[in-house]
Amino acid sequence: MNTATLLISCPDRKGLSAAIANFLYTYNANIVHVDQHQDTTENLFLMRVEWDLTDFTLDMEAFTPAFAPIADRFQMEWKVALSSRRQRMAIFVSKYDHCLVDLLHRYRSGELPCEIPLIISNHPDCEPLARFYGIPFHVIPVSKDNKAEAEAQQKALLAEHGIDLIVLARYMQVLSHDFTADYPQRVINIHHSFLPAFDGAKPYHRAFARGVKLIGATSHYVTEVLDDGPIIEQDVIRISHREDVDSLIRKGRDLERIVLSRAVRWHLENRVLVYSNKTVIFS
Amino acid sequence: MNTATLLISCPDRKGLSAAIANFLYTYNANIVHVDQHQDTTENLFLMRVEWDLTDFTLDMEAFTPAFAPIADRFQMEWKVALSSRRQRMAIFVSKYDHCLVDLLHRYRSGELPCEIPLIISNHPDCEPLARFYGIPFHVIPVSKDNKAEAEAQQKALLAEHGIDLIVLARYMQVLSHDFTADYPQRVINIHHSFLPAFDGAKPYHRAFARGVKLIGATSHYVTEVLDDGPIIEQDVIRISHREDVDSLIRKGRDLERIVLSRAVRWHLENRVLVYSNKTVIFS
Amino acid sequence: MNTATLLISCPDRKGLSAAIANFLYTYNANIVHVDQHQDTTENLFLMRVEWDLTDFTLDMEAFTPAFAPIADRFQMEWKVALSSRRQRMAIFVSKYDHCLVDLLHRYRSGELPCEIPLIISNHPDCEPLARFYGIPFHVIPVSKDNKAEAEAQQKALLAEHGIDLIVLARYMQVLSHDFTADYPQRVINIHHSFLPAFDGAKPYHRAFARGVKLIGATSHYVTEVLDDGPIIEQDVIRISHREDVDSLIRKGRDLERIVLSRAVRWHLENRVLVYSNKTVIFS
Amino acid sequence: MNTATLLISCPDRKGLSAAIANFLYTYNANIVHVDQHQDTTENLFLMRVEWDLTDFTLDMEAFTPAFAPIADRFQMEWKVALSSRRQRMAIFVSKYDHCLVDLLHRYRSGELPCEIPLIISNHPDCEPLARFYGIPFHVIPVSKDNKAEAEAQQKALLAEHGIDLIVLARYMQVLSHDFTADYPQRVINIHHSFLPAFDGAKPYHRAFARGVKLIGATSHYVTEVLDDGPIIEQDVIRISHREDVDSLIRKGRDLERIVLSRAVRWHLENRVLVYSNKTVIFS
Repeated sequence: MNTATLLISCPDRKGLSAAIANFLYTYNANIVHVDQHQDTTENLFLMRVEWDLTDFTLDMEAFTPAFAPIADRFQMEWKVALSSRRQRMAIFVSKYDHCLVDLLHRYRSGELPCEIPLIISNHPDCEPLARFYGIPFHVIPVSKDNKAEAEAQQKALLAEHGIDLIVLARYMQVLSHDFTADYPQRVINIHHSFLPAFDGAKPYHRAFARGVKLIGATSHYVTEVLDDGPIIEQDVIRISHREDVDSLIRKGRDLERIVLSRAVRWHLENRVLVYSNKTVIFS
Repeated sequence: MNTATLLISCPDRKGLSAAIANFLYTYNANIVHVDQHQDTTENLFLMRVEWDLTDFTLDMEAFTPAFAPIADRFQMEWKVALSSRRQRMAIFVSKYDHCLVDLLHRYRSGELPCEIPLIISNHPDCEPLARFYGIPFHVIPVSKDNKAEAEAQQKALLAEHGIDLIVLARYMQVLSHDFTADYPQRVINIHHSFLPAFDGAKPYHRAFARGVKLIGATSHYVTEVLDDGPIIEQDVIRISHREDVDSLIRKGRDLERIVLSRAVRWHLENRVLVYSNKTVIFS
Repeated sequence: MNTATLLISCPDRKGLSAAIANFLYTYNANIVHVDQHQDTTENLFLMRVEWDLTDFTLDMEAFTPAFAPIADRFQMEWKVALSSRRQRMAIFVSKYDHCLVDLLHRYRSGELPCEIPLIISNHPDCEPLARFYGIPFHVIPVSKDNKAEAEAQQKALLAEHGIDLIVLARYMQVLSHDFTADYPQRVINIHHSFLPAFDGAKPYHRAFARGVKLIGATSHYVTEVLDDGPIIEQDVIRISHREDVDSLIRKGRDLERIVLSRAVRWHLENRVLVYSNKTVIFS
Repeated sequence: MNTATLLISCPDRKGLSAAIANFLYTYNANIVHVDQHQDTTENLFLMRVEWDLTDFTLDMEAFTPAFAPIADRFQMEWKVALSSRRQRMAIFVSKYDHCLVDLLHRYRSGELPCEIPLIISNHPDCEPLARFYGIPFHVIPVSKDNKAEAEAQQKALLAEHGIDLIVLARYMQVLSHDFTADYPQRVINIHHSFLPAFDGAKPYHRAFARGVKLIGATSHYVTEVLDDGPIIEQDVIRISHREDVDSLIRKGRDLERIVLSRAVRWHLENRVLVYSNKTVIFS
């Protein structure tokens, strides 16, 4: 099915639902999914609506001018996405390959509606895997001394391939603020703890030392502040006193894979809206 | 806040959302919650919309005639509920009191928006608890021989107190078909297994014998077929080989309490729609 | 069944298991539960063994001198507990009564093997509940000015009633270090977050502000440092963007009840061993 | 670390623990893991003990005659396994490759202590994947007409490669009783439902039709009766009314991968004991 998805965020006002519903009805939209949410404390209206384009009488090239009066009237932040235009996703990875294996398998089995034009790594280890899936693999070593140059190289590749979304699949380098500022809400990271607990380095070791009874993983958009961006998804698993740090790391890999892949899929399906450093997931 | 909630189920057709949104906008509704769902296989449209009545310009007494043309045009099954009119709930219980204790505490702390005019039991054991919460307690013993009379007595009490919803809080008698037919989608039961596994008697014993690794509980609407009605909520908890049947029963009580109370609250908040022997939960 | 339970913690050395097993076999112990754990990083041996006393040929009055040579040889920290001697538990509560209701119901239904000689509160609100369960209720108001006196009164009551364990069932006062030092590993608190995230005040509000996707609760032994004692149990529940702070608080109550009651039961059944600010749960 | 693991199952009798502990102490065993369980209803004693072989003074070639007197005295069923002798595992697969991808990645990253000398499939689809991991891949088509011959071929391959364990990673053929009888408790299957619910065909479709609120997956040993063997592991995930059968299948894949891999790992680490059509997991 060929669909369009509209994501809207604006101050909540009467008449909003009617205005949007009437607009879509005017052009004979066959709606397949609607979800909306009102944040009463912030007086915000947030909506996702997806419709089948088969009978839609408005040419999508003309959508923006046609919708603009409504968007202006209600001071909307909005975007529209077409299922026919798959997002272009780059994966950054270091040596740990479990998230990469998982993303590539989901990609090939059709779970992730995207193109993956390239994988970037600071190590060559994952290259055979990339080759197996037929995806160009670029090794760009990163050290204290060459960080700026390395990022320049990375940026050039991203620009060249028209990348929409960057996924840090256990990429062990911190991106500079300049870098992430270029991709607001378009860099997804997986952190191996239940944030805000154990942000920063060595979360499994610290979870072990603290004696927690559950460990977690968190996928989030990357912002200026380390491990502080809007959380997209989290999950946890129970551990016992029988387990050592290695066991936590092993169990954690399963969480990381699943939590990261959910976030990536939701992003690619235009199910995520960000406000106030939080996310709404229109699932 | 004084609100009205509209629940709608009808064949999915273009213009539905617009018709409803326009109707509400016409009377200046301040919408606080909307959720809708399309079942594409059955071509069904299901919706819950709740609005603040403060600025609503249509007298709710006049709602039905005003909304009827839209309802007719789209062949809706619908109902509207007012938060000012709390549902009247009867609890049936036998000797196990853990669900009763839980419901009464939630009721008193304001979690359950309802009145509880009476508790009916086939045993006197729970009477002190009912008295503590100030709720009339009726003992109606049930045996093979007097079942019809007992149900007649129960029905008379329910009618007398204008009961909307019956909650079977581990009530150990099977209600007759005649009885439940009088309260379609208005009798909620808690079954102590993860249905459809272990329907019928002694589910914990059978779960133990089968060697499952998780046990569950299921709340559902009661229908003609035992343990086969629309499922409202389910949950599970992990067990280990260290646990015996008594331990399963103990752990299961926590599930039963929580799973039943969620179902009851969702029903009372008009969040449940039933179709095709399933439920939609507008949470 | 009348049982004895031995809890042991000591440096791990060869021959430990054999020494303990031989000792118990010598006196014809009928073992019903054994669990042991080795922490290889700290070279610690931790064990719980419970045996039926029916055929046990050693008088339990003579247990300590009989076991002492083994305990000395292996530098054990150890204790033995008899199921015939139920621990004496005091509950501290403020105004929120959900954990209290839960503990009292479990107590009366036999889930918690203890005596509850008294409940202490800084408010009179929960008194009717205590009276319903037939448990003496002492109101000791606490303010900045009278804290020392109030604690003196509390301590006097605890001493008078021979209290073994203090449970803080959402008691909204911080106990002084002097107080908790008198009851090492014998004061259990419930904190309404997934520690170490959101320690301190208003965890639900902060969880809401951070936009987490799961909320949690943590039961732990109280130590000098606020919310930093050994964790006994934790659990979490999923939340969505649809939920506000009130909803988090409501959902959290279910977690608090369950997480606290598990910790209390495990403690009363002598299933908890503490080392390195962590717990081993011999379940 | 080079270890030996002893698994014991026998009638529970006094002196058992002492006899085993003394035996191991006699030969200077450095125990790294002990777990034991008594099933009081069946009067069974079940134990797993693992020890470091570094200082062990008994040659493992001589273990059986040395241990035999104790084993005989207590009527033990027992086996001893050496970590130095990795089990040889065959994977059977059809077209769905998600479990295979997962097992092979875990195998290569060292999570699964085994050799994988071959993969057998009734379709050629997964061959590139097998080649990527360097594992011989045998295509043996199966139809109604050639089933006996196909199994004969499979058996010959298994015998030739000295296979200890067969993992059915979504293998879509039912093995004959003769076949499974040759590998008692050595064939692990993944069933895509929470057994005993939805045993047999099309479990996701039936789960969808029944309107359950959670879906599950179950790994179990294969026996004569379809989907009725001893359960090794189960897990579930929540679904909502928003999800269709395709979504259940997608979510279920994550469950299948994790539930199967846990069972395989526990089996390979000699953590599973079977009795009364149940499993004890010494985790």
